[in-house]
Amino acid sequence: MKNLVFVLLAIFPFTGAAFGASVPFSEATEECISCHLSIYPGILAEWEKSLHARITPKEALKKPELERRVSAKKIPDELGAIAVGCAECHTMNPEKHKDTFEHEGYKVHVVVTPEDCAVCHPTEAKQFGQNLMSHAYGNLRNNPVYHSLVDSVNGIQSFEEMKTTLKAPDAETNFDSCYYCHGTAVEVKGKRARKTAMDEMVFPVLSGWPNQGVGRLNPDGSMGSCAACHTRHAFSIEMARKPHTCSECHKGPDVPAYQVYDVSKHGNVYSSLGREWNFKAVPWMVGRDFTAPTCASCHVSLIITGEGEVVAERTHRMNDRLPWRIMGLIYAHPHPKSPDTSIIKNKAGLPLPTELTGEPVKEFLIDEREQERRRQALHRVCLSCHAYGWVEGHWARFENTIRTTNAMTLTATNIMLSAWEKGAARGLAQNDSIFNEAIEKKWVEQWLFFANSTRFASAMAGADYGVFANGRWYLSKNIQEMADWLELRLKGMQEEKKQ
Amino acid sequence: MKNLVFVLLAIFPFTGAAFGASVPFSEATEECISCHLSIYPGILAEWEKSLHARITPKEALKKPELERRVSAKKIPDELGAIAVGCAECHTMNPEKHKDTFEHEGYKVHVVVTPEDCAVCHPTEAKQFGQNLMSHAYGNLRNNPVYHSLVDSVNGIQSFEEMKTTLKAPDAETNFDSCYYCHGTAVEVKGKRARKTAMDEMVFPVLSGWPNQGVGRLNPDGSMGSCAACHTRHAFSIEMARKPHTCSECHKGPDVPAYQVYDVSKHGNVYSSLGREWNFKAVPWMVGRDFTAPTCASCHVSLIITGEGEVVAERTHRMNDRLPWRIMGLIYAHPHPKSPDTSIIKNKAGLPLPTELTGEPVKEFLIDEREQERRRQALHRVCLSCHAYGWVEGHWARFENTIRTTNAMTLTATNIMLSAWEKGAARGLAQNDSIFNEAIEKKWVEQWLFFANSTRFASAMAGADYGVFANGRWYLSKNIQEMADWLELRLKGMQEEKKQ
Amino acid sequence: MKNLVFVLLAIFPFTGAAFGASVPFSEATEECISCHLSIYPGILAEWEKSLHARITPKEALKKPELERRVSAKKIPDELGAIAVGCAECHTMNPEKHKDTFEHEGYKVHVVVTPEDCAVCHPTEAKQFGQNLMSHAYGNLRNNPVYHSLVDSVNGIQSFEEMKTTLKAPDAETNFDSCYYCHGTAVEVKGKRARKTAMDEMVFPVLSGWPNQGVGRLNPDGSMGSCAACHTRHAFSIEMARKPHTCSECHKGPDVPAYQVYDVSKHGNVYSSLGREWNFKAVPWMVGRDFTAPTCASCHVSLIITGEGEVVAERTHRMNDRLPWRIMGLIYAHPHPKSPDTSIIKNKAGLPLPTELTGEPVKEFLIDEREQERRRQALHRVCLSCHAYGWVEGHWARFENTIRTTNAMTLTATNIMLSAWEKGAARGLAQNDSIFNEAIEKKWVEQWLFFANSTRFASAMAGADYGVFANGRWYLSKNIQEMADWLELRLKGMQEEKKQ
Repeated sequence: MKNLVFVLLAIFPFTGAAFGASVPFSEATEECISCHLSIYPGILAEWEKSLHARITPKEALKKPELERRVSAKKIPDELGAIAVGCAECHTMNPEKHKDTFEHEGYKVHVVVTPEDCAVCHPTEAKQFGQNLMSHAYGNLRNNPVYHSLVDSVNGIQSFEEMKTTLKAPDAETNFDSCYYCHGTAVEVKGKRARKTAMDEMVFPVLSGWPNQGVGRLNPDGSMGSCAACHTRHAFSIEMARKPHTCSECHKGPDVPAYQVYDVSKHGNVYSSLGREWNFKAVPWMVGRDFTAPTCASCHVSLIITGEGEVVAERTHRMNDRLPWRIMGLIYAHPHPKSPDTSIIKNKAGLPLPTELTGEPVKEFLIDEREQERRRQALHRVCLSCHAYGWVEGHWARFENTIRTTNAMTLTATNIMLSAWEKGAARGLAQNDSIFNEAIEKKWVEQWLFFANSTRFASAMAGADYGVFANGRWYLSKNIQEMADWLELRLKGMQEEKKQ
Repeated sequence: MKNLVFVLLAIFPFTGAAFGASVPFSEATEECISCHLSIYPGILAEWEKSLHARITPKEALKKPELERRVSAKKIPDELGAIAVGCAECHTMNPEKHKDTFEHEGYKVHVVVTPEDCAVCHPTEAKQFGQNLMSHAYGNLRNNPVYHSLVDSVNGIQSFEEMKTTLKAPDAETNFDSCYYCHGTAVEVKGKRARKTAMDEMVFPVLSGWPNQGVGRLNPDGSMGSCAACHTRHAFSIEMARKPHTCSECHKGPDVPAYQVYDVSKHGNVYSSLGREWNFKAVPWMVGRDFTAPTCASCHVSLIITGEGEVVAERTHRMNDRLPWRIMGLIYAHPHPKSPDTSIIKNKAGLPLPTELTGEPVKEFLIDEREQERRRQALHRVCLSCHAYGWVEGHWARFENTIRTTNAMTLTATNIMLSAWEKGAARGLAQNDSIFNEAIEKKWVEQWLFFANSTRFASAMAGADYGVFANGRWYLSKNIQEMADWLELRLKGMQEEKKQ
Repeated sequence: MKNLVFVLLAIFPFTGAAFGASVPFSEATEECISCHLSIYPGILAEWEKSLHARITPKEALKKPELERRVSAKKIPDELGAIAVGCAECHTMNPEKHKDTFEHEGYKVHVVVTPEDCAVCHPTEAKQFGQNLMSHAYGNLRNNPVYHSLVDSVNGIQSFEEMKTTLKAPDAETNFDSCYYCHGTAVEVKGKRARKTAMDEMVFPVLSGWPNQGVGRLNPDGSMGSCAACHTRHAFSIEMARKPHTCSECHKGPDVPAYQVYDVSKHGNVYSSLGREWNFKAVPWMVGRDFTAPTCASCHVSLIITGEGEVVAERTHRMNDRLPWRIMGLIYAHPHPKSPDTSIIKNKAGLPLPTELTGEPVKEFLIDEREQERRRQALHRVCLSCHAYGWVEGHWARFENTIRTTNAMTLTATNIMLSAWEKGAARGLAQNDSIFNEAIEKKWVEQWLFFANSTRFASAMAGADYGVFANGRWYLSKNIQEMADWLELRLKGMQEEKKQ
């Protein structure tokens, strides 16, 4: 090992202390390093800056409970006293991993999964498994309504004989689009020999790869990817706590959380003063470590007061502090009980959590008591910096906005229903997609973009985004444009009839 | 006090020096702290990092004039020798504050106002009072044209019998939308007892709360909120000088100052190198403390050269260095003389600073001499880093852009006037809102979004925003779409007539 | 010089070492400083922080080859042993510079050009000269198709007798719009006396000034501006390497590279952790100096591994690592061979690199072998942090996206061709612009905004931007809206015919 340390010290002089000193590597990891110092060296350099390379699980377990990031009560002996290196993760559970392959004498797999991470982080893995996010692949794929939306967005259209036709999208397009964030199904499609810098070697051929989407279906049968937020190979808690991480998937008009945060007072404090905050402290002390929340503070992290009182427990079930689901569906509604939303059916038989009128399908959704519990959990975070009256006033405004944006969606839906009924557009009754025509796409924007953007702006006090940027202005304009279009179309149809 | 200091030192060890040492707190503030260390502790932790907690007004007054942030010539004796703590602000002027309530033996109010701040910062409070911003509430509320725009954006629309109808928005929606930035009227609606962590206590019930909009109407009768930019409770000058603060209200397409700055050379220098600048120096030395301006440098701050010469005096009347008002209205025009714009009337009797042709309503607007004075004030800032020919060329281009964007707005207005005249839309003559129909909303976008965005991009040299992002592309496309729509509508009307 | 140093030390105390010590200034530069310490002082202060002020070219030449930023083999004697100061650049090649003027006994020019910089940086200047960017002015101006697009965007439209007309834009508008990034032609229009802070002096009058566009035509006959990325007068490599620099021109929907980067994993790592990176190291060591690429890492910079192996040579021909040109034209296609694209002609005689069907005009474009060479050059950068299978999978997805977005553009083009053919719009056959009508502008958005945005999102793995923000959603919606419009128009035309 001495030579290796010497090489590492020469290359990473600024981190020499960690590499050279107290944290031993497993023999297997040392072997990985010996080649991968020159093959994909950036991975190694990044990992070397991580806590995984700098503290053993055994040492990590000795920390006081609130400071601990390892949630396992006990770590397997063979893992406890060494760094969490290449081999530790990439050879974990080899028999479960369909992507396992023989590599220089080891049974290595490419795709590290929540089940691999669960050896040391079982609580987080379990909570994440109960999360809507970990079900994001199936919830999109197995719901015929969403699936039809995906097809209409990603499919290839042609124009022939003055008509457009839609061909279902190929898999690569879906991977590159919706499933980038929702996660792909990563499947082993065979093996393949390839000449490498060392020798000819055999590697598995994976479909749906690369991907780090939150709901990825993994070759070991597990769901999700920790790397979506805890980016390989630094696994930096600082990064996971910063809003840019969430913005990878939560910035577009369908879920503009980051955009709203960015123009909120909270976002401003973060952008202006955040560079002096402590993003690494566990637990995270409000006021001392940060003076305005990031996404993680409100929704995920373990927060304490200056006196050491726990304000909020850490959770990786992201809606634990959220009574309302304000995006992705036609109307805002209480969160679904089960993270598997493909089981939901409304009275009309559609797999939707509300009727087309906005009425919630109660049996599949959390009840008012659970909503209240989640509201309290969130408010406790607010109340660590805001007085009661402030929080109460803010929340009343937000719930009012839920009602008014739902009303504005209902109006657009009523126009759409008229269009279908009067034959100006083709919908379910004509056995046609409800997402493929121009007017239907305008209707979709009403709820998928404008109503939800307005709600996000209200929820997180980023009003600038909720009016002219992507909110109420379009919510009101869109109704007028839909009505204008329908009037024109119906007149045209009358003319045709007359003749 | 010893115990309290001890507790504080334990919790905020990194700031112990300030807390433990030379700046004494008033007895009242000590009492506040003793409970609020555990109730809303984030507020306390943030304040503790502020200058208010670290220097007494008396000491602050001793600084050389250019370095001074306190503009009062004299501070009341009882305030001079203690930290500016909770009680100092929240019990100021109790008799004027309708939101004053009895709280643990003190007459406390919730809403701290510019008049409270004026005890130490009278010049800034006075300038801000002459600012368009401090009048933002009334200017929106009392101008029937703007009020009609607000209603059309925030109101609830319904669709019945193939027609849309508009219901005026409720107050909460307005608070959550336009008035978030413009400011709400904060009014005391009664009192209410509430069980707190300590005891049952009585608090005032406030409407329009929370709000920190620039034109807030306060319970003490004053206008505005210093916290809009000087965020509670750190009151950090660094934050007020950073562009993120302005972006809270100046990012959307109606006033995209931040978006333009962000793609300008200035914004690039800030984003790339700003972390090494000194945002706390007063006065602010160009070149040494910063090498590219932020919003504050050009429009607000006291700027000096390396030789100590004053480039620009500090001002809180934000348009002191601005000859043109380029946003918010149908045409760009010289700034209004009075910050109360509800007094303006054009020849047509409308409360607008120009005619519908773009001709300015001169009697209410600053004259050319005052425009020139403001232009010079701004150019002095430019000239601290740019040669004369550069500034001259840039400005000529900007004023050309004012003319061309006004021309493109006139064209859209002419189309709109034709639509009203020929009955394709319903306007003032039909006693209808000029903002509620689809085509009218397109017309609004011409000036409220595209023309002003193009002007901002020109003013601040962020051309990327002014062409395809939100500028000339849409300015030209929108005219074609309006003309296209009008042609189609008129043909339809002719067909109907024939039959 | 002693007094000057003394003054400088007083003003810039934190940089005294550099100013006061080992790097002597030329006599000419000393004279510049003596006045410009108070006239435009920010320029001086910024330059003083630059390497130009802190190391002589002679010393710079002594560095090991990989660390060297000066690419000249030899520096002229008179420049070698002094700082690169005001006079060194602004009096270089006076006879070539048409903007040279007599100024306090020196032949000074305003506009410093790549040819001036080439004295020390000849390789970079030469590469940049072979770059599409350095030809950006002529490529826009001399291509009648693009020129017609510019006119339709920047021109002034009027509305009279129910018809719109378009007047060609004035020069200032073009400078403020497209040519801001593409570069202006900076021309000397005469001389003018002006009273300055010192005396009356005579300066050249320049048109097209100020400008720092990449393809600027300079008064010495050279093309381009190094200051576009290497911002005057700090010439900071840190800044050039940060993505904000590129975002000045590459953020809008026509070329949203920055927007995509910002929501990519790479962009997230940069935003979250980049403040700890070393942006000044030359060469730039992957993993140690940075753990995720910025624009420069992939496309420009000299990159080495921890073992000192060169991953990528520095290049200022920006497409050296790019096989595909994915923006700016109707279809994605292999990069053109020559940076002067005005020489290209397709079968239809149009100056476009593809036919209207998307078929590439091969003779003007790089062949597959050259594409493969560039692909390899880029992949070597990817492979410094990503495994082979990851890179391969990512690239396959990207090239699939090139195909599908080209297909979606073809569909929109087919609708447009039908509209022209059937007289619903006026195109080339009617000797009319193909960019001036509403429906034509929709067609332009299909390729100029939506198809290319989708490709950028795919290329740089910023999927959030490529679906709902500005990608596939609009790509699919736009086709439906175009088809819907065409159907309505054609029906209207039939009605008219009948009567």
